[in-house]
Formats: sequence, C-alpha cells, structure tokens
Amino acid sequence: MSTPSIVATRRALIATPGKAFDLSARDTGDKSLFEDKENAETSLKKDAAVINELKDMMYAEGKRSLLVVLQGMDTSGKSGTIKGVFSDTTPLGMEVKAFKAPSSNELARDYLWRVHNAVPKKGHIGIFDRSHYEDVLVVKVRGFAPAEEIEQRYAQINAFEKHLTENGVTIVKCMLNVGYEEQGVRLAERLEEPHKLWKFNPGDLEDRKLWAQYMDAYQTAITRCSTRQAPWYVIPSDSRTRRNAMIARLVRGALEGMKLEWPASEYKPGDFDIG
Amino acid sequence: MSTPSIVATRRALIATPGKAFDLSARDTGDKSLFEDKENAETSLKKDAAVINELKDMMYAEGKRSLLVVLQGMDTSGKSGTIKGVFSDTTPLGMEVKAFKAPSSNELARDYLWRVHNAVPKKGHIGIFDRSHYEDVLVVKVRGFAPAEEIEQRYAQINAFEKHLTENGVTIVKCMLNVGYEEQGVRLAERLEEPHKLWKFNPGDLEDRKLWAQYMDAYQTAITRCSTRQAPWYVIPSDSRTRRNAMIARLVRGALEGMKLEWPASEYKPGDFDIG
Repeated sequence: MSTPSIVATRRALIATPGKAFDLSARDTGDKSLFEDKENAETSLKKDAAVINELKDMMYAEGKRSLLVVLQGMDTSGKSGTIKGVFSDTTPLGMEVKAFKAPSSNELARDYLWRVHNAVPKKGHIGIFDRSHYEDVLVVKVRGFAPAEEIEQRYAQINAFEKHLTENGVTIVKCMLNVGYEEQGVRLAERLEEPHKLWKFNPGDLEDRKLWAQYMDAYQTAITRCSTRQAPWYVIPSDSRTRRNAMIARLVRGALEGMKLEWPASEYKPGDFDIG
Repeated sequence: MSTPSIVATRRALIATPGKAFDLSARDTGDKSLFEDKENAETSLKKDAAVINELKDMMYAEGKRSLLVVLQGMDTSGKSGTIKGVFSDTTPLGMEVKAFKAPSSNELARDYLWRVHNAVPKKGHIGIFDRSHYEDVLVVKVRGFAPAEEIEQRYAQINAFEKHLTENGVTIVKCMLNVGYEEQGVRLAERLEEPHKLWKFNPGDLEDRKLWAQYMDAYQTAITRCSTRQAPWYVIPSDSRTRRNAMIARLVRGALEGMKLEWPASEYKPGDFDIG
C-alpha cells in the first residue's frame, strides 16, 4: 500500500470552489485513501515529523503563518486531531484556540472580532478548535441570530479569510465528517471510560437530535465558503487514524506550499569578535 | 547510573528561600545529578511522556494550571528547553509566551500588566520564555527604569506570584545558568550553522560585555524572589541534555505534586439514551 500524494489527497477531499457540493454524498467511513490502517499510521508519523521541521523554519522566518481550522460535530475528533497530527510538534510557535460560547465581552463586538484577535502570530501555527463557522452553524441551527444576519455572514467570512491570506496566513479548513452511527458509539464510550467521562455533556445529546439541521448548515457553509484561497476539505472521520493521516497530508502540503527556507542573514562567520 | 529522585533534584538546584545565595558558587558545568549523558536522555524521555499524561489530566480537570518560567542569558537554551522538555507534549492546553521588548501599549501600563495577561488558563501549562524578571534584569543593567522603582519590584513580584499560587497556579522558576565560555562557543555556532544563523543578533554581544552586571542582577533577583511558594531553581546549563533532564524532573515533580485525577462525573453509563 502506498501513501496517497498530497495532490491526490487534496483532490479526494476538497469541496471544489464554485461547484455544487453534496455533503450527504461523502462517505464518513471512506477508506479509499488509506485502505491499510498501518500505512495510515506510518504516513502520519512521517508527516508529523516533517510538519515539526517546517514549523521551525516558519518560526525562524517569522513572516507568515498557518491557520488550521477544525470543525465537526461532537466526538468528530477535533482534540484527537490536534494530538495526533501535531504529536511531534513542540509547543514553541504553536497556538491552539478553542472557541466556546462567546463571553459578554465578545458578544459586545461583531462575531469576527474574537476570531481576528486569535489569528496566529507571524511565524506560528494556529489551530482553531471550532471557529467563526460556529456563527453559521450552531448559531443558525439554534436560531441565536436573525436569519438575514446569518445570510450575510458567508460573504463576510470569505472576505475575512481573503484578507488573512493576502496578509500571509495560509488557511487549511477541515470538516471532520463523522457519521451519526459512529457518534452514537463514541458518546457511549465517553460514558464508559473513566478518562473520557469528563468530556460528556448532556447538551451534546440535544445537538444530536438536531443532526439533520446541522448537516444542512454544514452543507451551506461548505458550499458558500469553499474558496480558491481557502477551500474546505471534508475528512471522512469514522476512523481516527485515517482522519489524522489525511489531515497531516493536508497540513504538510500547506507548509510545503509556502516554500520555506532558513532565513538568510546579513552576517557571516568572522563578522564579529565574540570575545 | 540511576536517575536522581525529584526530591534530590530539587534539593541540588534550589536557591533556598530565606538563605544567602551565591550564584558564582554554582558550577554551570555541574554533572553530579546526571554524570552519564545517556541516563539523562533516558530520564528526559520518561519524564516527557509522564508530563504529557499529567497535562491531559490537568486539562480535563480545568481548575489549576502550571507556569514554567525560563530565564537565562542568550544561548542558555530557553527555546531548547521548551522543545526538549515538552517534546512529547501535544499542543492542546499548552501556551508558550515569549516576552520581547514591551510595546508602547504595554509600556502604557505597569510592568506586570502584560505578564498577568499572559498567565495560563485554568487547565493549561504556560511557559514563559523570559518573564517579568526582565524588569529586574535587563531593565536594571541597562538602566531602563529608576533604581528606586526597580528596588520596589522584588517585593511586588513576590506578592504577584503569591497571588497566583493562591489562585491555583503552580510556578516553577528555572534560571538556565550557562557559563561565559560556553556562551561564546554557542554564539560562534550561530554564526556557522545555516539553521541557527537567524537567531544571531549583534545586540547579544552588547549584553555579553555586561556579563558581570547581569550576573549581579540575577544574584539579587534570585536571592530576593526565591520564596517558599515559588522558589528559584538554578540549572547548570552548559550541557543541553542534562539541563533538559533536570528541568523535566522539576516539571514532572510540580505536576505530580498537584495530585491530579481524572475528574469525577455526575453521570454514569445508562443515565442517557444516546439514540
């Protein structure tokens, strides 16, 4: 079994900008990129090491940054992705931001204010565990904002992301596409394993009842916000290992696409007397 | 060769609160805790894995946090420590804050304002790469503030750290004690290795010329701010591997001292119908 190329991985997972997108046609258990699980593990491990190296170069350069946006239903594996894909990545130059329900201070501003504030520094990798897309997902499904305001947000989000990419931020957006069945299994697991119990929140069951509405909202968000500069990738997420392996390919691809190099210096040996 | 216990490591490295402290008596090349380098590597590896586990439990608990303060002269290995000690630590729940020269926005407030703002969230490990101690180190040596203001700061810092510890923050303060000779070797290295060149800053040579004044300032800061609740540890740092191994022992010890457990839940299997 060979590892799929980065180009092939992108092609298989992208929601092509400007084309009709059908979330229901995406198999959450699709194994075609990594039929063999061990191959997925090997590929993940290799990519994780390369990601750490490239991150160090980006840190040294200090001019551009990478933003990885993770969205998905509860148990889809946002935390697991952070741990798995960045298992080799030292915390220097990493920023993980988990977006929770907005505080009163955040609600006092427009919904992108707190997001802009959390954009990674130059030279850093930022990971969004949930993101501004919540403002067209949970906010839409639960009716937390007027429909006409939400309707405006897709174009606002595209403009915001365009602004970021024009200012040196490479964006990788991954929708962790877990199946309804698999979510049921994972929620049950949380109730059974002592080190997972703390993650269980009865509110998750409320969202589970609204599954169809959430899928609708995802379908719309992905269709309208998969752009050339910041496309959406839809990751089959019923298998944790394969999910991590696929996302690692995308993250590595994004970093390689930046053509990073160790920064040149104006100095050379002999320029200074160290003393 | 056996690994020194955490208690023995602390005892060897601490600047005992309330006692006279002599920085010049500390051997920057001391190998007594880890005579054997391979043993240091093995110990570091084990501790790094345990640190990652305990971090996950602290994250799950979400009530307390750990703050690791790293101070030291240029090339003493602050970045290297972050990479080495936290090599196994996934970025979820980690916050690295590098303190640079304060911005005009920061200078418009008192010197602890930006520091308080960077305190790790509950459940997180925060690492300070430089810290509020710069305000009694470089600021003192370079005369960036009046002497009588600086004189007040030691007690202010102690009060601030006491406040943090009383509010659930465990503090581990490490002074990376590198020798003058070894710094010279490392600065020369930076000028010779392509992936280190970007770190070279001619300003470092200015600080090197003020070595004796810096050592004086460190001596005073450590003497006056090594407290029962937040003691200073002085880490012999001429050997990178041993430095990391010693700091890993201290970090692990601090996390173990918190008596972390997977949080209990009010729920149990069967309480819910997953559907």
